[in-house]
Amino acid sequence: MAHIDLGIDEKRFPGIIGLRMFRPETAKPLNELAEALLRGPSTLARGERELIAAYVSSGNECRFCRDSHSAFAAAQLDGGRPLVDQVCVDPDAAAISPKLRALLRIAAAVRVDGREVTAAMVAAARDEGATDVEIHDTVLIAAAFSMYNRYVDGLATALPDDPAAYELSARRVVEHGYTA
Amino acid sequence: MAHIDLGIDEKRFPGIIGLRMFRPETAKPLNELAEALLRGPSTLARGERELIAAYVSSGNECRFCRDSHSAFAAAQLDGGRPLVDQVCVDPDAAAISPKLRALLRIAAAVRVDGREVTAAMVAAARDEGATDVEIHDTVLIAAAFSMYNRYVDGLATALPDDPAAYELSARRVVEHGYTA
Repeated sequence: MAHIDLGIDEKRFPGIIGLRMFRPETAKPLNELAEALLRGPSTLARGERELIAAYVSSGNECRFCRDSHSAFAAAQLDGGRPLVDQVCVDPDAAAISPKLRALLRIAAAVRVDGREVTAAMVAAARDEGATDVEIHDTVLIAAAFSMYNRYVDGLATALPDDPAAYELSARRVVEHGYTA
Repeated sequence: MAHIDLGIDEKRFPGIIGLRMFRPETAKPLNELAEALLRGPSTLARGERELIAAYVSSGNECRFCRDSHSAFAAAQLDGGRPLVDQVCVDPDAAAISPKLRALLRIAAAVRVDGREVTAAMVAAARDEGATDVEIHDTVLIAAAFSMYNRYVDGLATALPDDPAAYELSARRVVEHGYTA
């Protein structure tokens, strides 16, 4: 049971889905932020950006966001779910590009505290070919999921009973995005 | 010096101001979220909502956000800056309503981790007259500043040389809002 009465069937509209229906005024910019960060024009692939979101949510132990964005990442990455799960457990051992690995290190630092990001981490990402916009977007994705995770867990929203719900959401997001 | 080249005079456009100019695609939803949360229709006064933002930013030791939203709160609260500073140091000793004090306890929990919010904290806020929408908005303001703080600090943005810059921003925000 969520901490507040969302006025919906929580199992049918779990996590942020029910929150969006409860407060459409804030849902609009929250959806548009996810769309811009995770699907808008970028030199980072959509699957890579979803992977950063899944990785941060995994670090924050936010089950709804972790399982949602793991499914969204898996649907848009060649390595599929095994790669996503590997990244969440140990990105250093995962078969990802050195650039993405360096960006994940920055994301991990942001998740703890913005001030944990060091000039050396940024230089390492740049050495692997990361651009300033990619570094910016990585920091903002990690910061944004520090928000979404707290929002979903801070109101004690429900999880779906059936894990297949995440795959269903993945198909919807891949096809229609976050603002449909 | 910020971690990335923002292409602007960082002292003239400190904190999130320079980041907004660097990446207008994400600035739009970020501004609209701040506008909806801190200035949109609500039974919480604008000064009270800015106070929650200042309090969370103070807890996260994000100087730019703390000093910005402290100025924005002070400009819209009867107690002015002394009240804001007192809340940031010790909300239990501050001359605020019992409802706002209970909401600040929820915000402090969200800042650490969404899962730190307890049913007892929510019940205490409700006992002091907080509505479900007010509890929702408090959680989302605290979550959102967990993002803005990480964004501003994660990219090592500059502070203004002159603290009067915060008062100038306060006048602009009070008059024109976050999306002007």
